[in-house]
Amino acid sequence: MSDSTFRVKAVSATAAKTIVKARNFEIIVDEPENLGGTNTAANPVEYVLAAFAGCLNVMGHLIAGEMGFELRGLKIDISGNLNPAKLFGQSYEDRAGYKGISVKLTPDCDADETTLNEWLQTVENRCPVSDNLQNTTPVKVEIGKIAVKA
Amino acid sequence: MSDSTFRVKAVSATAAKTIVKARNFEIIVDEPENLGGTNTAANPVEYVLAAFAGCLNVMGHLIAGEMGFELRGLKIDISGNLNPAKLFGQSYEDRAGYKGISVKLTPDCDADETTLNEWLQTVENRCPVSDNLQNTTPVKVEIGKIAVKA
Repeated sequence: MSDSTFRVKAVSATAAKTIVKARNFEIIVDEPENLGGTNTAANPVEYVLAAFAGCLNVMGHLIAGEMGFELRGLKIDISGNLNPAKLFGQSYEDRAGYKGISVKLTPDCDADETTLNEWLQTVENRCPVSDNLQNTTPVKVEIGKIAVKA
Repeated sequence: MSDSTFRVKAVSATAAKTIVKARNFEIIVDEPENLGGTNTAANPVEYVLAAFAGCLNVMGHLIAGEMGFELRGLKIDISGNLNPAKLFGQSYEDRAGYKGISVKLTPDCDADETTLNEWLQTVENRCPVSDNLQNTTPVKVEIGKIAVKA
């Protein structure tokens, strides 16, 4: 298969609120008031977990189909902890992002434990978001041409 | 500062559509039809980029404030490429997730180039989502208690 490219275009609505477009979909990102936002939407690090949950759902169903059992439903609980000290420039001891992420998948199905363990391992191994969180990904950042004032 | 915990709770609506709750916010994740979904919302890997855009906006404004220049606006364009072959189990040559992510930040401000380069470096260094994408993060996955059929 050949590579697929995904993209978003975003603009700042305020210092903490962002209007993101992904294809024809609008995604609002904000921060709670204690992190400087207006609390109109989930915040960036919550969207990371939401992306992960969505990916695990897709992979969970795909792999169950490949393995030949029916997944009648799937609950996904994810949590992560981070220290906001680096974000705020108060300390550089801890990393900026999540130090660790915990996932609990609760499948509604009749598969036995051995089957489910194999399922879980395959889901995690082939899930794109899992890969991008657990492994390093090169990020290239550049400054675009600054708008000339009228 | 002490650690903050963020969490989401999600359920599968269909094999490709996920209903995610983050605090009181609902986030719908789906896939386009060519990836097996019903195309009612952005997909998981697009949400990763949206999260990154939201985080860069917050950090961009925070660091500009610290550096003493006004950020009147910020445009953020992000793209990433991945090969869906591993996701679909067709080939394990390429990794599952984004192979690389490109970001273009277009700030509306009067800062000079040297200032903006320092700004950019600091934004990237202290952005939690940037950290989680560029560096490894431990992920612990477990299977929850399976619902007993009535």
